[in-house]
Amino acid sequence: MSNSLSELITLTAMSRRWLKKSPILLLAFFWPVAPAVAADDVLPSWNDGPAKSAIIAFVQATTDKSSPQFVPPAERIATFDQDGTLWVEHPMYTQVLYCLDRVPAVAKAKPELAAVEPFKTVLSGNHEAIAKLSMDDLFKILAATLTGMSVEEFRIESKKWLDTAKHPRWKRPYTELTYLPMQELLKYLRDNGYETWIVTGGGIEFVRAFAAETYGIPRWQVVGSSINNKFKLVDGKAQLERLPEIDFIDDGPGKAIGINSHIGLRPIAAFGNSDGDIEMLEYADSGKDAHFEMMVHHDDAKREYSDNR
Amino acid sequence: MSNSLSELITLTAMSRRWLKKSPILLLAFFWPVAPAVAADDVLPSWNDGPAKSAIIAFVQATTDKSSPQFVPPAERIATFDQDGTLWVEHPMYTQVLYCLDRVPAVAKAKPELAAVEPFKTVLSGNHEAIAKLSMDDLFKILAATLTGMSVEEFRIESKKWLDTAKHPRWKRPYTELTYLPMQELLKYLRDNGYETWIVTGGGIEFVRAFAAETYGIPRWQVVGSSINNKFKLVDGKAQLERLPEIDFIDDGPGKAIGINSHIGLRPIAAFGNSDGDIEMLEYADSGKDAHFEMMVHHDDAKREYSDNR
Repeated sequence: MSNSLSELITLTAMSRRWLKKSPILLLAFFWPVAPAVAADDVLPSWNDGPAKSAIIAFVQATTDKSSPQFVPPAERIATFDQDGTLWVEHPMYTQVLYCLDRVPAVAKAKPELAAVEPFKTVLSGNHEAIAKLSMDDLFKILAATLTGMSVEEFRIESKKWLDTAKHPRWKRPYTELTYLPMQELLKYLRDNGYETWIVTGGGIEFVRAFAAETYGIPRWQVVGSSINNKFKLVDGKAQLERLPEIDFIDDGPGKAIGINSHIGLRPIAAFGNSDGDIEMLEYADSGKDAHFEMMVHHDDAKREYSDNR
Repeated sequence: MSNSLSELITLTAMSRRWLKKSPILLLAFFWPVAPAVAADDVLPSWNDGPAKSAIIAFVQATTDKSSPQFVPPAERIATFDQDGTLWVEHPMYTQVLYCLDRVPAVAKAKPELAAVEPFKTVLSGNHEAIAKLSMDDLFKILAATLTGMSVEEFRIESKKWLDTAKHPRWKRPYTELTYLPMQELLKYLRDNGYETWIVTGGGIEFVRAFAAETYGIPRWQVVGSSINNKFKLVDGKAQLERLPEIDFIDDGPGKAIGINSHIGLRPIAAFGNSDGDIEMLEYADSGKDAHFEMMVHHDDAKREYSDNR
């Protein structure tokens, strides 16, 4: 896990709509370089302050049987966005970097692609040109690199990349670029009987490839965007083939829908970092009396990526 | 739980395709009226015989660290069909009976429906005419009774019905008409580190309404057929509205696809009772070296419903 990326997280409001409707935690919390950690500090990387106090007060209120806000363990659901909330999302989504890195292998298997756009540009290695690719181009790259194989083959390919690829700036595997305060929060919630779920706009299979090892979250507690799969018998063996057809976009209102589809309960705690998380937070906000929503926003130019870079 | 319904289960092959490809447990096991239960009998309602022995041998082989077939706890996934595998499915699917029972309430809210088919026939109470309704008619009834309300409203309505409705023949709540041997099997697997999942052709929300209380299976470990939901803000509160649009049919190849979508792993044990479960069993059969598939078939005319009734 990278400490460098987790030294500062600023909590802020990402949306006027959200700002208007809810009491927001609009706070900064710092992780000192050499923190004085109390032995019983459940969130040692969080600076003492209102954000940390609010989390601890919420967890205590929902787990203390004598509290009017007590929530039975079966209903202690906490949902987390992934990109930008649990791990780094700059310079671009990690899954997009995976797709770009896969282009040479795809072009080797299908040489006719190397001569046509957008594959030609990606193979050129010209970063400026790659950064200018359109959304249509990006979809062509995603379809070519994420589909056409079995679910198991994709799992092996993406795991292999995650084990070897390094972030261009931090020169470390992406799975090490998670936020320590959020890792502590995941553990703190689970230690208090919460089920922690990832609810990502990213591909469900891609995030499942590292969720257990990186966050301690089992494969089935990942909700994400998905493509259609087709059942096939290949040499008498049942397989699911990944098709270039979008099944579900787990973003915005889709996050509330995906949560209901996979969990079947409203979360009582939800954590996000962008507009695509608003409906998830609203969904938690509109349920039980006891609920907790937080927007985290990393924008420190020195120790993280600034949005205004 | 009803003992009367669980006195006899016959294991058999439901499909020639399945028969041709796999070594099948083609056995009967009986639950004696006054069983002599050994203190350490993990499946007391199962007659001693090859079926019971095969289950116990499989569980021992997959949980013993020194066994070549050992499977880590995180991969011990067991999937169960519901209708006809875990509980009674005669005289018709319980969820269809729920829909028929809901017609008077729907017609009260929308009086214009009472004069048109198929609602007119359902309201007549003429069982013979109701039994002759076409699939098209049935879909109209399903759409009218299962959609148009929020997810939470549907949850309350279906739970209320399950708490009060009685099976026409057994005069007991449907949730008491589960198979005792299968209940024991669920518990035995969980006691050995297995995660037990329901994979049903029935509606995911309907089965979630009773899965925890009836089977000890949490809401998120139910995979099922679904309709589309729409995210709405009603008086500032986030809701999901159930739309009359089919999202996913969790049957046949859909069971393998639904398993991947919700669990993200192949089951290593799968239990079904009909052709709609074949692909689920094939999916388990085509995975790890250690796997177990079983078709249960209740066909005893005296103590259960006979298929040839």
